[in-house]
Amino acid sequence: MIDGSILVGAEIRQATARFTSVNPATGETLTPDFSSADASAAADACALAAAAFPAYSATTPEDRAAFLEAIAEQILAIGDELIERAMAESGLPRARLEGERGRTVGQLRLFASVVRQGDWLDATIDPALPDRAPLPRPDLRRVNLAIGPVAVFGASNFPLAFSVAGGDTASALAAGCPVVVKGHPAHPGTGELVARAIRAAVDASGLPAGVFSYLPGETNALGEAIVADPAIKAVGFTGSRGGGLALVRIAAGREEPIPVYAEMSSINPVILFPAALEARGEAMATAFVQSLTMGAGQFCTNPGLVLAIGSPALDAFVTAAGAALTDSQPATMLTPGIHSSFEQGVDALAGHNAVTTVARGRVGEGVNQAVGALFQADAEAFLADRALGHEVFGSSAIVVRCRDMAEIGRVVASLEGQLTATFQMDEGDQDDARALVPIVAARVGRILANGWPTGVEVSHAMVHGGPFPATSDGRSTSVGAAAIYRFLRPVCFQNLPDSLLPPAIAEANPWGVARRVEGQREGSPR
Amino acid sequence: MIDGSILVGAEIRQATARFTSVNPATGETLTPDFSSADASAAADACALAAAAFPAYSATTPEDRAAFLEAIAEQILAIGDELIERAMAESGLPRARLEGERGRTVGQLRLFASVVRQGDWLDATIDPALPDRAPLPRPDLRRVNLAIGPVAVFGASNFPLAFSVAGGDTASALAAGCPVVVKGHPAHPGTGELVARAIRAAVDASGLPAGVFSYLPGETNALGEAIVADPAIKAVGFTGSRGGGLALVRIAAGREEPIPVYAEMSSINPVILFPAALEARGEAMATAFVQSLTMGAGQFCTNPGLVLAIGSPALDAFVTAAGAALTDSQPATMLTPGIHSSFEQGVDALAGHNAVTTVARGRVGEGVNQAVGALFQADAEAFLADRALGHEVFGSSAIVVRCRDMAEIGRVVASLEGQLTATFQMDEGDQDDARALVPIVAARVGRILANGWPTGVEVSHAMVHGGPFPATSDGRSTSVGAAAIYRFLRPVCFQNLPDSLLPPAIAEANPWGVARRVEGQREGSPR
Repeated sequence: MIDGSILVGAEIRQATARFTSVNPATGETLTPDFSSADASAAADACALAAAAFPAYSATTPEDRAAFLEAIAEQILAIGDELIERAMAESGLPRARLEGERGRTVGQLRLFASVVRQGDWLDATIDPALPDRAPLPRPDLRRVNLAIGPVAVFGASNFPLAFSVAGGDTASALAAGCPVVVKGHPAHPGTGELVARAIRAAVDASGLPAGVFSYLPGETNALGEAIVADPAIKAVGFTGSRGGGLALVRIAAGREEPIPVYAEMSSINPVILFPAALEARGEAMATAFVQSLTMGAGQFCTNPGLVLAIGSPALDAFVTAAGAALTDSQPATMLTPGIHSSFEQGVDALAGHNAVTTVARGRVGEGVNQAVGALFQADAEAFLADRALGHEVFGSSAIVVRCRDMAEIGRVVASLEGQLTATFQMDEGDQDDARALVPIVAARVGRILANGWPTGVEVSHAMVHGGPFPATSDGRSTSVGAAAIYRFLRPVCFQNLPDSLLPPAIAEANPWGVARRVEGQREGSPR
Repeated sequence: MIDGSILVGAEIRQATARFTSVNPATGETLTPDFSSADASAAADACALAAAAFPAYSATTPEDRAAFLEAIAEQILAIGDELIERAMAESGLPRARLEGERGRTVGQLRLFASVVRQGDWLDATIDPALPDRAPLPRPDLRRVNLAIGPVAVFGASNFPLAFSVAGGDTASALAAGCPVVVKGHPAHPGTGELVARAIRAAVDASGLPAGVFSYLPGETNALGEAIVADPAIKAVGFTGSRGGGLALVRIAAGREEPIPVYAEMSSINPVILFPAALEARGEAMATAFVQSLTMGAGQFCTNPGLVLAIGSPALDAFVTAAGAALTDSQPATMLTPGIHSSFEQGVDALAGHNAVTTVARGRVGEGVNQAVGALFQADAEAFLADRALGHEVFGSSAIVVRCRDMAEIGRVVASLEGQLTATFQMDEGDQDDARALVPIVAARVGRILANGWPTGVEVSHAMVHGGPFPATSDGRSTSVGAAAIYRFLRPVCFQNLPDSLLPPAIAEANPWGVARRVEGQREGSPR
């Protein structure tokens, strides 16, 4: 059921102020209309989250894992209504959204397994040394505790996997943090369905109501009120650079500044090394255009920059990529706003006097459709204008022609922080690639070889992060098991009576977690 | 040898602008005078650090550990000149500085053992699943890499253990980061001796010169230039709230914002629970005053706030503490500036109309001496004026008299973030203490029972951190083995040829580190 509600803990509210969502494929306004939550709903949700924090953060790994699994079940139980609504609100095709639902449920289950396994607690014990001279050592025990209530801002481009019950919510709940979601106004119906699913899981799990609240809205003031609320102790965000930086500023200006994990902007350089380009440039071109245009290019990891040494092989690559792009179908973008930003970005590149347009995709009949764009420029021109390195969200890329590997290195070194960098390389490219690895590694969260950056595996080793502005905190990942660490902080307990210790560091180890003693791992008692 | 030099990598420079240090015990100006490094020295040091980064961050654990041990040896090799100079520049007594040298050397050796052990790499492998449907999984390998060159600002109150070769430098070097130290102007001779020791270790270890630079100076402009330099990727600082926040602002305003780990301000509440207070209030009072006045109270963990329920037992505690303080000797403070700030803070409390002065320590003959101060106030007054909760750096504390445990809870909940909280508790206090643990744990980095917060063990389980303003980043510790994580960031390698992988995640595991595969720990091959 979708009726435009605000979910303040267990309480269902309706606001007088309303907003609507639009089907970007048709321009049609969808029903129903939605409550636009205001600052008072935000304050109430944050207060409930703070009230729920002590009990929720003290849940056992088993109870918390079962709760995450219950959310996954409740999402699946919505059935096809969820997919239909998400299709209508995002313009994304059914197969993509079914896959995304699988990913959403899969990451909730992954975090359930992570919570049960217990390494995230980093339980560390330095036993007392009463006879040490000149001074005895006290008993010292360190454990990771939940940071506090977390504000989550969903992304428009993943209405399921990075929205209401997406990666940020899953990892924050896994860490023991209540979550206040600011619903994305582009998919409020989808958001409400998922919020009600989480609500049902909270109830069924017997958890305090404040563990989860959902605040739909379209005003900046709503997001500002949530981030400024003293109860909130961290923020997860995926979206634009401007939006992320606004939240960073609010968080830094609080009486108690808090961490913001904003995943913002990346052009994901792809480096075509000479031997690979020579051997399989045309196949690469087709695969590249596929990655570029997938989902209208609306991925954080969309390949927006191609670097290679000028050569006949590069000419052939550009020709083949241009041909593939010319044949590409237009695709509906997520919102009219995203579409118009894309067009502005593409127009700016097309009109830049150092940039040549290689090709544009097919123009369609529908509204809000991305028409793919491929440009090229010389390295010198690219290095001379930083604007050429800014993200154009959507299927737009620029091929930058370099004189030699050293110039490729200079271009890479000039780039801002990135989520990914891709090496297209063959056996003969290994020495060139090896020389670039340290330069690239210092600027990205993930380096991949002979694949394409779109498609982010949700696993233990994934890093979806990177130095600024890829994210506002390059020490973290927003995808994969390690995302839980964003919402934890270490606390040391010195000589506390055993009965007062958190279970993970109590003498009897009732949760059976692996611990470190004197810096060395104990065998896991499991 | 001390001649006032700047150490820009291996290059020794002298600047025309000079400054001097003062013996705080006598007011006498010490010789020689010192170079005041300028922005151009800072730029050169940062450029050298950036140049050294690829090679230094790629050193093997064994080489890096041996380097840390070599620094420890070189510091010991300075001999008594180091102790004598530190005594003259800080007013601290010989025994304290000899102990601090031991701690400095000990923490370098601890980080050497941490580096060798390898858990800090968090090597994590999700092997390829080529047959997985619907999509194969690529090979994914995650490892922690050094964040880049680090700027270190030493503390005045630990001229050895938290200055040039102190905890921040040791943990940054352990992580693989070159270090640029901004020397503290209160102990430039001590700083130069230690800087030359590090320099000698860099040379002897055959490392690139830019691994370490030392920039003495007394201007804010010098620190600003270092933090603003694009080569610097993180900052370690211990000092005042004003100083720390200034660096946070500069770091946040950079084109690429960077993390700042500033350890700033804490009043370290001590809670006297009723049964313990009744049973041993007088013994507690003596021990409390000892902790309060140790080192003129110039510890970040100095107990500046005592909370207890008003009772005859508390009256007896206050009387006994007042008597002990009245008998306490004055002690030279680190600098004339710190002394005058202390006097201003104490005067403000003494003149506050809701605060009563319990006792002052003995007044001495010397200059810059802290005269201990003990105040008391009601919880209501404390809650009404946040200024009463601000740190007065030095031996000043306030006893806050509460009506009941609930009011103690409200006072704790009103506090800003703290490095520590102390429970003085007996068997009969366990239920009261248990109820306070979650409230306290949310606000501090360390909770200790039946000890005093001064004296910070350097070990694996220590947390010397806490929410703002105890530190600018409550997800970290600046003391103990876990401090290394501040200067690392995760990078994922997807399908990279084995020969291009960092050794920690290469198939053959040449460094023999423990790794996680599919989220489960492999047995360490060692």
